[in-house]
Amino acid sequence: MGPLIQLKDLDFLLYQVFNAEQLTEFPRYQDHDRSSFNSILDTAHGIALDFFAPHNAKADHHEPTFDGKKVTTIDEVKIAWKQFADAGLLCAQHDYADGGMQLPTLLNMACNAFFMSANPSTVAYCFLTSAAANVIHAFATEEQKAMFLPSMLNGRFSGTMALTEPDVGSSLGDLSTKAIPQEDGTFKIKGQKMFISGGDQDITENIVHLVLARIQDAPSGTKGISLFIVPKIRTHADGTLAEANDVNLAGLLHKMGYRGTTSTVLSFGENDDCVGYLIGEAGHGLKYMFKMMNEARVGVALGASMIGYRGYLESLTYAKNRPQGRLPTDKTSHSKPVNIIEHADVKRMLLAQKSYVEGSLALCLFAARLIDEHQANGNEDSAILLDLITPVVKSFPSAYGPKANDLAIQVLGGAGYTREYPVEQCYRDNRLNPIHEGTFGIQSLDLLGRKLWQHHRLGLVLLLQRIQQTLEASTSEEVAPLAKIFKVHLNTLQQTIAVLGQSLHEGKVNETLANSALFLEIMGRVIVAWLWLEMSNKALMTYGQSENHEDISFLKGKLQAAQYYIQWELPEIEHYAKLLMQFDMTCSNMQIDWF
Amino acid sequence: MGPLIQLKDLDFLLYQVFNAEQLTEFPRYQDHDRSSFNSILDTAHGIALDFFAPHNAKADHHEPTFDGKKVTTIDEVKIAWKQFADAGLLCAQHDYADGGMQLPTLLNMACNAFFMSANPSTVAYCFLTSAAANVIHAFATEEQKAMFLPSMLNGRFSGTMALTEPDVGSSLGDLSTKAIPQEDGTFKIKGQKMFISGGDQDITENIVHLVLARIQDAPSGTKGISLFIVPKIRTHADGTLAEANDVNLAGLLHKMGYRGTTSTVLSFGENDDCVGYLIGEAGHGLKYMFKMMNEARVGVALGASMIGYRGYLESLTYAKNRPQGRLPTDKTSHSKPVNIIEHADVKRMLLAQKSYVEGSLALCLFAARLIDEHQANGNEDSAILLDLITPVVKSFPSAYGPKANDLAIQVLGGAGYTREYPVEQCYRDNRLNPIHEGTFGIQSLDLLGRKLWQHHRLGLVLLLQRIQQTLEASTSEEVAPLAKIFKVHLNTLQQTIAVLGQSLHEGKVNETLANSALFLEIMGRVIVAWLWLEMSNKALMTYGQSENHEDISFLKGKLQAAQYYIQWELPEIEHYAKLLMQFDMTCSNMQIDWF
Repeated sequence: MGPLIQLKDLDFLLYQVFNAEQLTEFPRYQDHDRSSFNSILDTAHGIALDFFAPHNAKADHHEPTFDGKKVTTIDEVKIAWKQFADAGLLCAQHDYADGGMQLPTLLNMACNAFFMSANPSTVAYCFLTSAAANVIHAFATEEQKAMFLPSMLNGRFSGTMALTEPDVGSSLGDLSTKAIPQEDGTFKIKGQKMFISGGDQDITENIVHLVLARIQDAPSGTKGISLFIVPKIRTHADGTLAEANDVNLAGLLHKMGYRGTTSTVLSFGENDDCVGYLIGEAGHGLKYMFKMMNEARVGVALGASMIGYRGYLESLTYAKNRPQGRLPTDKTSHSKPVNIIEHADVKRMLLAQKSYVEGSLALCLFAARLIDEHQANGNEDSAILLDLITPVVKSFPSAYGPKANDLAIQVLGGAGYTREYPVEQCYRDNRLNPIHEGTFGIQSLDLLGRKLWQHHRLGLVLLLQRIQQTLEASTSEEVAPLAKIFKVHLNTLQQTIAVLGQSLHEGKVNETLANSALFLEIMGRVIVAWLWLEMSNKALMTYGQSENHEDISFLKGKLQAAQYYIQWELPEIEHYAKLLMQFDMTCSNMQIDWF
Repeated sequence: MGPLIQLKDLDFLLYQVFNAEQLTEFPRYQDHDRSSFNSILDTAHGIALDFFAPHNAKADHHEPTFDGKKVTTIDEVKIAWKQFADAGLLCAQHDYADGGMQLPTLLNMACNAFFMSANPSTVAYCFLTSAAANVIHAFATEEQKAMFLPSMLNGRFSGTMALTEPDVGSSLGDLSTKAIPQEDGTFKIKGQKMFISGGDQDITENIVHLVLARIQDAPSGTKGISLFIVPKIRTHADGTLAEANDVNLAGLLHKMGYRGTTSTVLSFGENDDCVGYLIGEAGHGLKYMFKMMNEARVGVALGASMIGYRGYLESLTYAKNRPQGRLPTDKTSHSKPVNIIEHADVKRMLLAQKSYVEGSLALCLFAARLIDEHQANGNEDSAILLDLITPVVKSFPSAYGPKANDLAIQVLGGAGYTREYPVEQCYRDNRLNPIHEGTFGIQSLDLLGRKLWQHHRLGLVLLLQRIQQTLEASTSEEVAPLAKIFKVHLNTLQQTIAVLGQSLHEGKVNETLANSALFLEIMGRVIVAWLWLEMSNKALMTYGQSENHEDISFLKGKLQAAQYYIQWELPEIEHYAKLLMQFDMTCSNMQIDWF
């Protein structure tokens, strides 16, 4: 199997583009330095290579089974889980006092990148557990923490997020799982949840479900929803196991990809004996969940980026080594075939992949950096900017990671369509990402209907400030021409926002939001093009004077990918902007009977 | 399972848009009329529904196995094969004298559409056999025909096309399978072939491979290639079976989709005892194969269209019946959720699918009509036009059928990602189509490097004449505004061709062909947009005066999809044309070390 990531690229993004060392100036991270960061990265890389990558295909072929009583996963998953937990990676970001490393989000994301490339299905159990632990850490009582948190951070227990229900999907306000108050302050939970990843498995001693439910007589809609801790097996105050808790697996869902991760239908309280513990205040369930949702969405984006990245590297290796065909100017039949990377159209497919996956990874790491600035340094502006761009961070990699995988298959041709090569699994795995944690359409409504206008558009102002800084630095002969093209399209974005803002102001809600997907696409491309300018500037600063061949090639590659993205992909937004500003109602006017 | 196609749409395309009844004026088809056409369509539809659709998912789950000796397929495949053969569909287009129906290609394609929607994997065995039989019918000797053809047309034998080799891929000129002349006029074949669909199975008594090989001492390159009939089991002059023929299955390839069709690695002459029969003249092998290739490519396109169509209908049914969420203007929490088809973004995803799959199907049927005009009526212009557009016919549906399937999954959301719904299989199956029978990149070089300029550009002149006729008919208030937009972009296409032609004329081959994929994309969108104008005009002519609700809805749907395609999708070509006319070398200039 090929490399998980280009290490030089990751190093460049962390230390040059996003200035990871500067994070050690924040008190929470002050014990860290570049060397400790690199040591953790090395550990993660090693575990990903040795314990996750080798069974990625096997876990896909041998997906978890359910015999009506028990779920069975392959042994390699359990070994990988233990390695991940034993290395302290489940609690890498937690306090030293809790056994954690107080690792910045930026570095944690970089560690996660190795695992997402190596084996997104197996590591999903780990990431879900970290996310659930974060919620408990942030909002649960000390007693609740004592019961569950240590076991989740050391790998005895795993965690899940149980939101969706069979008839509810993304519309959480309609959920119907009930919570009936008991005299001892606990609740009896009753209802069914669907699409619960990791909802059952044979990897850990216990599973801690975070369940959204409606307390008896609570109002309908989102305001009536509370959040509960519901363990699969009840737990004593000290975290030791007690009896089972009436959480039953109704069945496994079988997916196109991400097959190593169980997707479950869970029944809570079939026998009216399912205990749940309320987290925080009643009626605030969605608020607690959404506090974590930004991070969960960046996590999905990282997965999409890295599955894309993995496919890119696989197709690159193949293209460098597969002789076939001749260049158009070679009309002889006696010449040797060239390696397919020599063909202009193969270069196009590789360059497009590079621009998508490296751009996506940069976007995820940018979001991670904003999380650190806010959480470890109290920077509210960073939180506001993150809030604005989260729909883009979730959606762009989720759209373009799969596109990259599509191109990777195409580079390999017939071989890429067979299961003898890894790219078809990448393609299947990555197809989940535009769906979960909010589809592209839902993210686009969130962006255009809400996020863009929050805080008197301060998020947008902050974004434009950052972009302006990059543009001011884009004075080199290499980058200035790209910055010039970029400005034209940035201007289009601003015009579009002005027109749509005016229209919303006039109360034309449906008209303004009808083509929200186009707006999200525009925002995504502008932000990623900006990151390509930023990467170009930083690559020039870092390697512009180097005489080392590898450095020069790296720099040239970044510049060429930036040029590709800005000359080929970015200008397409002009057409989308036109449709938006004309309030084109073609789709919206389509009537059901006309299909 | 949902419908295979909208029957009203197929009827409209056949009889209104492509004037199927007019074909009965050709002597070869004179015994047919609309009633006989419809009767054959009904038969095909019934067999597709009853014997192909029911095991589409099962054949995917239980792909053929190979125990080292024998391939095993599920029984349903054998039953379906027999039904198809017994209905005379293997030889529907053949002469009455050979037991055929002398069915026009246009109608044969329409029959095939049902099967491609129902079960593309199982019907692949049938279509491969028809294609091989067509080659034998056209180029083999009477003795050879007597040995093989009747058994292929009645379903005793199947057929394959054995072109690709492990180290050769699309570059057939490099193939190395040898043919050694024997004293009795036969040849001994020796070599390995790869990606041979249907190359082994347990469905038929015998398999007739059409094998490209190089006769001993033949020149290198394409001119040294000859075509051979190589049966799996040797056959007496009357078609009865003799002994085995040293054709061995080296292994099955396991694919992401299209799993019901075996994809094989075949060894010919491992024991130096593989008999082959030369077809036609030595050294003309590729010419014979390519005579059939236009039809094979339209066949691939039809599959891509219909798998796309099937996904469209599945997602349409789901969207009409799945309540979730509320419209943006509904801020109450007490209202009932709407069916998701009410959401503007879901309408967009359905309308895009409709425009892709109905446009693709129209393109395939247009190509079929051209084949009839040429083969049954001797119209050379039709052959030249078909030759020009074949790369587009192959590539557009192969690109946009899968895009439609991607959108179908997105409409279903999490459900669409599970194997409990059929759209994920559509997505996997359809991913083959941009690869086989010539990738998008190879088709684009064929179009821009060769087809466009052949016959002093007569193909283009003929295409523009047809487009002009449509534009002249586009005078209605509904269609005229769309035609006006279309003309702008048609003009861009013509300008682009002028600039690229001039550049080729100046010998700038690499520069001109570097971005050939963009040119193919432009041609595809213009041709499909033209077909949408044509469909709009014909729908108005047919249903413009109707007061029947279903007719009016059908008409409105066609007009709205045309509007979508021409206002949303077509204008994107302006950016591609700009890159082409600027001879943008961004991709081509990328160096291997820079990746």
